[in-house]
Amino acid sequence: MRNKGKVLLLNGPNLNLLGRREPEIYGSQTLDDIIGLLHAQASGGGVQLDHLQSNAEYELIEAIHATDAAIAVINPGGLTHTSVALRDAFLGVDLPFIEVHLSNIHAREPFRHHSFLSDKALGVIAGLGAQGYEFALTAAMRHLKKAG
Amino acid sequence: MRNKGKVLLLNGPNLNLLGRREPEIYGSQTLDDIIGLLHAQASGGGVQLDHLQSNAEYELIEAIHATDAAIAVINPGGLTHTSVALRDAFLGVDLPFIEVHLSNIHAREPFRHHSFLSDKALGVIAGLGAQGYEFALTAAMRHLKKAG
Amino acid sequence: MRNKGKVLLLNGPNLNLLGRREPEIYGSQTLDDIIGLLHAQASGGGVQLDHLQSNAEYELIEAIHATDAAIAVINPGGLTHTSVALRDAFLGVDLPFIEVHLSNIHAREPFRHHSFLSDKALGVIAGLGAQGYEFALTAAMRHLKKAG
Amino acid sequence: MRNKGKVLLLNGPNLNLLGRREPEIYGSQTLDDIIGLLHAQASGGGVQLDHLQSNAEYELIEAIHATDAAIAVINPGGLTHTSVALRDAFLGVDLPFIEVHLSNIHAREPFRHHSFLSDKALGVIAGLGAQGYEFALTAAMRHLKKAG
Amino acid sequence: MRNKGKVLLLNGPNLNLLGRREPEIYGSQTLDDIIGLLHAQASGGGVQLDHLQSNAEYELIEAIHATDAAIAVINPGGLTHTSVALRDAFLGVDLPFIEVHLSNIHAREPFRHHSFLSDKALGVIAGLGAQGYEFALTAAMRHLKKAG
Amino acid sequence: MRNKGKVLLLNGPNLNLLGRREPEIYGSQTLDDIIGLLHAQASGGGVQLDHLQSNAEYELIEAIHATDAAIAVINPGGLTHTSVALRDAFLGVDLPFIEVHLSNIHAREPFRHHSFLSDKALGVIAGLGAQGYEFALTAAMRHLKKAG
Amino acid sequence: MRNKGKVLLLNGPNLNLLGRREPEIYGSQTLDDIIGLLHAQASGGGVQLDHLQSNAEYELIEAIHATDAAIAVINPGGLTHTSVALRDAFLGVDLPFIEVHLSNIHAREPFRHHSFLSDKALGVIAGLGAQGYEFALTAAMRHLKKAG
Amino acid sequence: MRNKGKVLLLNGPNLNLLGRREPEIYGSQTLDDIIGLLHAQASGGGVQLDHLQSNAEYELIEAIHATDAAIAVINPGGLTHTSVALRDAFLGVDLPFIEVHLSNIHAREPFRHHSFLSDKALGVIAGLGAQGYEFALTAAMRHLKKAG
Amino acid sequence: MRNKGKVLLLNGPNLNLLGRREPEIYGSQTLDDIIGLLHAQASGGGVQLDHLQSNAEYELIEAIHATDAAIAVINPGGLTHTSVALRDAFLGVDLPFIEVHLSNIHAREPFRHHSFLSDKALGVIAGLGAQGYEFALTAAMRHLKKAG
Amino acid sequence: MRNKGKVLLLNGPNLNLLGRREPEIYGSQTLDDIIGLLHAQASGGGVQLDHLQSNAEYELIEAIHATDAAIAVINPGGLTHTSVALRDAFLGVDLPFIEVHLSNIHAREPFRHHSFLSDKALGVIAGLGAQGYEFALTAAMRHLKKAG
Amino acid sequence: MRNKGKVLLLNGPNLNLLGRREPEIYGSQTLDDIIGLLHAQASGGGVQLDHLQSNAEYELIEAIHATDAAIAVINPGGLTHTSVALRDAFLGVDLPFIEVHLSNIHAREPFRHHSFLSDKALGVIAGLGAQGYEFALTAAMRHLKKAG
Amino acid sequence: MRNKGKVLLLNGPNLNLLGRREPEIYGSQTLDDIIGLLHAQASGGGVQLDHLQSNAEYELIEAIHATDAAIAVINPGGLTHTSVALRDAFLGVDLPFIEVHLSNIHAREPFRHHSFLSDKALGVIAGLGAQGYEFALTAAMRHLKKAG
Repeated sequence: MRNKGKVLLLNGPNLNLLGRREPEIYGSQTLDDIIGLLHAQASGGGVQLDHLQSNAEYELIEAIHATDAAIAVINPGGLTHTSVALRDAFLGVDLPFIEVHLSNIHAREPFRHHSFLSDKALGVIAGLGAQGYEFALTAAMRHLKKAG
Repeated sequence: MRNKGKVLLLNGPNLNLLGRREPEIYGSQTLDDIIGLLHAQASGGGVQLDHLQSNAEYELIEAIHATDAAIAVINPGGLTHTSVALRDAFLGVDLPFIEVHLSNIHAREPFRHHSFLSDKALGVIAGLGAQGYEFALTAAMRHLKKAG
Repeated sequence: MRNKGKVLLLNGPNLNLLGRREPEIYGSQTLDDIIGLLHAQASGGGVQLDHLQSNAEYELIEAIHATDAAIAVINPGGLTHTSVALRDAFLGVDLPFIEVHLSNIHAREPFRHHSFLSDKALGVIAGLGAQGYEFALTAAMRHLKKAG
Repeated sequence: MRNKGKVLLLNGPNLNLLGRREPEIYGSQTLDDIIGLLHAQASGGGVQLDHLQSNAEYELIEAIHATDAAIAVINPGGLTHTSVALRDAFLGVDLPFIEVHLSNIHAREPFRHHSFLSDKALGVIAGLGAQGYEFALTAAMRHLKKAG
Repeated sequence: MRNKGKVLLLNGPNLNLLGRREPEIYGSQTLDDIIGLLHAQASGGGVQLDHLQSNAEYELIEAIHATDAAIAVINPGGLTHTSVALRDAFLGVDLPFIEVHLSNIHAREPFRHHSFLSDKALGVIAGLGAQGYEFALTAAMRHLKKAG
Repeated sequence: MRNKGKVLLLNGPNLNLLGRREPEIYGSQTLDDIIGLLHAQASGGGVQLDHLQSNAEYELIEAIHATDAAIAVINPGGLTHTSVALRDAFLGVDLPFIEVHLSNIHAREPFRHHSFLSDKALGVIAGLGAQGYEFALTAAMRHLKKAG
Repeated sequence: MRNKGKVLLLNGPNLNLLGRREPEIYGSQTLDDIIGLLHAQASGGGVQLDHLQSNAEYELIEAIHATDAAIAVINPGGLTHTSVALRDAFLGVDLPFIEVHLSNIHAREPFRHHSFLSDKALGVIAGLGAQGYEFALTAAMRHLKKAG
Repeated sequence: MRNKGKVLLLNGPNLNLLGRREPEIYGSQTLDDIIGLLHAQASGGGVQLDHLQSNAEYELIEAIHATDAAIAVINPGGLTHTSVALRDAFLGVDLPFIEVHLSNIHAREPFRHHSFLSDKALGVIAGLGAQGYEFALTAAMRHLKKAG
Repeated sequence: MRNKGKVLLLNGPNLNLLGRREPEIYGSQTLDDIIGLLHAQASGGGVQLDHLQSNAEYELIEAIHATDAAIAVINPGGLTHTSVALRDAFLGVDLPFIEVHLSNIHAREPFRHHSFLSDKALGVIAGLGAQGYEFALTAAMRHLKKAG
Repeated sequence: MRNKGKVLLLNGPNLNLLGRREPEIYGSQTLDDIIGLLHAQASGGGVQLDHLQSNAEYELIEAIHATDAAIAVINPGGLTHTSVALRDAFLGVDLPFIEVHLSNIHAREPFRHHSFLSDKALGVIAGLGAQGYEFALTAAMRHLKKAG
Repeated sequence: MRNKGKVLLLNGPNLNLLGRREPEIYGSQTLDDIIGLLHAQASGGGVQLDHLQSNAEYELIEAIHATDAAIAVINPGGLTHTSVALRDAFLGVDLPFIEVHLSNIHAREPFRHHSFLSDKALGVIAGLGAQGYEFALTAAMRHLKKAG
Repeated sequence: MRNKGKVLLLNGPNLNLLGRREPEIYGSQTLDDIIGLLHAQASGGGVQLDHLQSNAEYELIEAIHATDAAIAVINPGGLTHTSVALRDAFLGVDLPFIEVHLSNIHAREPFRHHSFLSDKALGVIAGLGAQGYEFALTAAMRHLKKAG
């Protein structure tokens, strides 16, 4: 039974580098900064936010298996373009999700233009930096309310 | 000289049908409903919102030429996938823009997966319905403030 | 509410040249000649035929939006191969249509082998010259009767 | 010497199943029903109609070699997409033909979008069900008169 | 009305050569050896096995049309990669089937990697030699029981 | 009857921005500056120059339909890569033309490497800035003389 | 030295969800149910069955490195389509294997049609549900006997 | 046991039309004329020539299965580009062959540029008309002597 | 140090045939005729014109290495589509150049649509016959003046 | 004026290695051996044979320019797949030619499957070793007689 | 702050098998043998060498995140062709690296011809066996000195 | 008989420009500088180094034909991507070689990502500048010793 008061937030490989990694592309906020703001946003809406950043595909998969959250927000990092197993995890537990990318993946290398997740996502936000998470969380919280 | 208190909102072909057109994909709000909410959001932030919906590519191009807004939000409709001229209009007047799609174009026909605008956009939001406009407007207004 | 006694006939760019344009490909009848015959065919069947030829994509789109006809016959001319917006117009108002091409597009340049409309059409007729319109109108009128 | 009072009608593999095969795609008329109507149409126009349905490519090829009809109407079934030999048969005896498909092949699997015959056909009709044969026969009979 | 006590076994072109043809790829059992074993397996399960090997596509098609078996097992040989008509035969009479290949087609020429049947098959077995037929027959017999 | 003393000059979408748009690519002359020089060049050669810049595809098409000039010079802007209807307009009235691009389209995005007009043009000039028009006009005027 | 009395069974990412994940595609048996049956089948044939399900590519790789089994049966899940390292593991220790897929991967998304393992497998079974494991185990046990 | 004094000559679909079919491409000799000359050439070299022309793929396949000739010469006609079964027949009985085409298939439609036989042929001759058979027969007879 | 009073003119393989080679495509002027006119044009502008026609790629490369001209005009003939070394020669000595083709390469075989030089050229002129050289020389001389 | 008593034989890069180079592919005869036999064959038919082997593309091109032979036989070696200039040389002097390859290029690397010459050749012979030259010379000599 | 006296050496999946895995491709030295030699080479040059072999993508990523080495040498094994996350790790911490492959990846399966790392590497060495590491380490140590 | 004390070093087109050509890509050492160092390295190892730089493909081919060296090191320059004849020269005399590129060809234009030599090379080194030659020479000298 899914918990309609909970959102799962997932960050894939290398996102622990935020603020350190290519700041001209990804901005100077650290992941902790961003997560802090999102926790505040979630509590403000009476919603619990569970967060996991992992560089290991299998940890993200198992978090998707284990969660009872009713929706997820995910920035899959480089796995976006290479992981069928991550896609299968969402399909396997029937967990709706919103996909976020900090940078505009359409303006980067051609192999970043395809995502193994997008066609199964509720929606996709790219290129708006850390506010992409904020918008995705807003949409996720509204989705919970509508479904609640 | 660009006016940092103004946002140009453009809607391309067929978006006048909103609320009537394939509601299971696009939702039941009419375009007028949505524009009303966005005007409220803009005024709330002290920003002027200019809106044009047109089924004619050239009217969208000429609105881009004529505006003194400092940023645009655009849902190009079917022109997304076919109009180099629209792309050239944004490049020609050096107007930053955010691209919005109501439906998740990644989950639809293959020809909808490529956009002639995305690699030049600040960001892209797809699949979140009318709230995509709201998020894009929020991002645009913050962009104006940062640039102001 | 769709009017089951009306057929919308649309002709796209350059079809006003009929009789003048490459007669060895398109035949020597003018568009007026053809429309005259089709009006006769329609009245003979107790059906009203509305016709628009336009070189402007947006005028075709708006005719599709505005009509109350229950079915359309369209020769989209060069827009066949390039217009997603025209496709979206038909989808947006849920108007069934039959696609007609005077010449055999399969025997011409490769870019004419793909149509953005065909997979959404009731049927497609190509290469039979002006009688293609006649057959399409017959099929459209039968479609109206069956649906009536 | 070609007989300008005769039309050859060919139906390829599986068309003997008509009325039995996927009726939601192909309609509920049997092939015999359709052929009966076409014989009536032909006699009404003073034309002889020779018909062959075969599941064997070579029988269709040899019918094309043997006929003295001045034009053919063909629904090649699955051979549409795979038979160069059938194409070569038409070219080899210089027999003009009209290609008919009951279903809209553009709305089906991608491998059905290419025909080895279409670029050599006088015309192509797809998606209009059994009336596709009727229209093709009308066009063929007019072709005979014009050539007569 | 399909007979739930009968399985149709089809072998396509060149499979009459079994035991003679490239034994390092296909094994040294003859087709008669294999069919003998399968007949025993079928009778053991109280099921009738009808078998046809043919080098002619049309004979396979017509066997599919004519059978009252409730399921088929087919090794289409070279037709796997080239016959849309065979696919249409299965679709046309709505006969479920299991596809078998003696050799591992994935380890051979690239044109053997695509099958016109696989996406419509219940299942596909490749590379396990003659036991592929045995497994397919087992699965077919279980399918009959479940459906019975 | 074509007027061998007249050249039609067409400029497509966004070329009204010349001098304003990306001057490092397109130069700092305005379109008016360039047209002024070309009028002088034409009169010097005793030739009438008709000019139209339009952001609307249909206006370019209708200018091609309406003109009695015996040759055209066209910079189709972004329509170069997307408009079959423009190509059909030239073919439909059998008007020879020379294609000009200010920038070197071969050095830009891949989608700018294909033109729907070039294979039907008398010649193509790219990358030489405003003198491309001058050269095209010279070639057009010589063409008129040779044909005169 | 390989142990000819042992079979290694590997299940890749998300297969722990069996019975829970998309039951209309994968069936309602749990992985434990299936493994139980396979252990029985193996003991019945005097063979030891080692099983590992893992969502982590590296655990599967290291199980392949570590095993002394003489053959493997693997359902690689989503790694089928993305893991060269898994392929290299089998090649690196020269361990023959049989590939199993519960669903018919040929009837699903195009990216599921290619496997990085199939051309190196002894055989491939797809679409037959849990009995695919049973058949693969039978084939593996026979393979051991033949090699024994 | 192969008979080193015998050559099998095969002609595929539509080659019975020779002399009648597109003489500007295929020449005006009939197939009987050509076969007559080849029989003379064979007897002159003390070799038996068996000939079959068939429009049916299966008859060609079965002739390959049945022959005891030690080499074949084949003009597969349109089957060149579409028949894997024909290729498999040669591989299945291990019969060396030389491939002949009357016309220059490289100068014709793109789909004629690929042959399913060529990479398994001893050699390929195209575009030299009927003397292609003569050369192929010479090469075949020399091959027999060398192997004898 | 580059000599701003000198232009290098290069003609690649087969251009020595001009006036003899396919005159309906290339015109009837000989290369000597054209070079004579260009020498006159150059002297008229106070510029020295060095010319080399060679059928050998390496001679063209070495002329590019050796020259002190400040700009080049080149018609690379068939090397256009095949020579990376020629491209590298221009890049290696940083010599700007204008590319000329007598015929309209866009209207010829597909392999002529790609040039290994164009994206590095200042500009490209095609299809205007010998006046293409004249225009290129004019542009080159203006380029020298601007740079002078 | 072409000399109808002369054949030009050209051998491209690396063919001087014949008898030394990969004998299992190319045979053990040296080029001199082969040329000797061809000279004998030519004199026997009263025809003069001019031969050039060169590793330099330009020497082959210039031999084509210079010859007065009425037909050529060419084995272009590796230039087959890379030289547009060689193709242009034949087109430029309108010299008919027959293309020969010692090995079966269809059975080798994919890049050897395309020839820049074949679609302009009278005919193509591949895979028959040195007798390919003999057959090509025979065909060339007959061609001369027919044209004489 | 990067330590210019340290090199990070990474070996990806399956490289622990060295000496055991396909020795005809990878040589018979074990990874320990090679690492031993490289440690000696490094100390000889006064440089510290940190080594990690892992079959887990995430461990390689985290080693890249954690290291203070000023350069890396990596043999990514099968991850070469599939891991965007590994590429992102190098980009994210801005660590220069040299890519090494023991075997010649250009001579193996097509999917091994593309690397997600190469375009971001300082250099790439393939096919030279274990000395590839030696050369890469030499280059890395020189790089450190130059940067030092 | 190959001389195991000799290495052939080949440099292709434009490499005579080294030190002059794009120094930011290729470094500032001249080719003479590099060759000097390599001669020293070779003599130090008791090996003779023969060097040829040529801009002419045929000179490189003929040097490969003529040499008695037992191994070659080659930087083919632009011929890397376009010369099948060079590949054939190595194959024709069975001369092992190591391929060197100064720049990282994987980071440059897409057409530089394919080499006609790499799959036949012992190894490939790219992007390490002039030390690439040094490493290749080291590997070549070791190869000679092992073979000696």
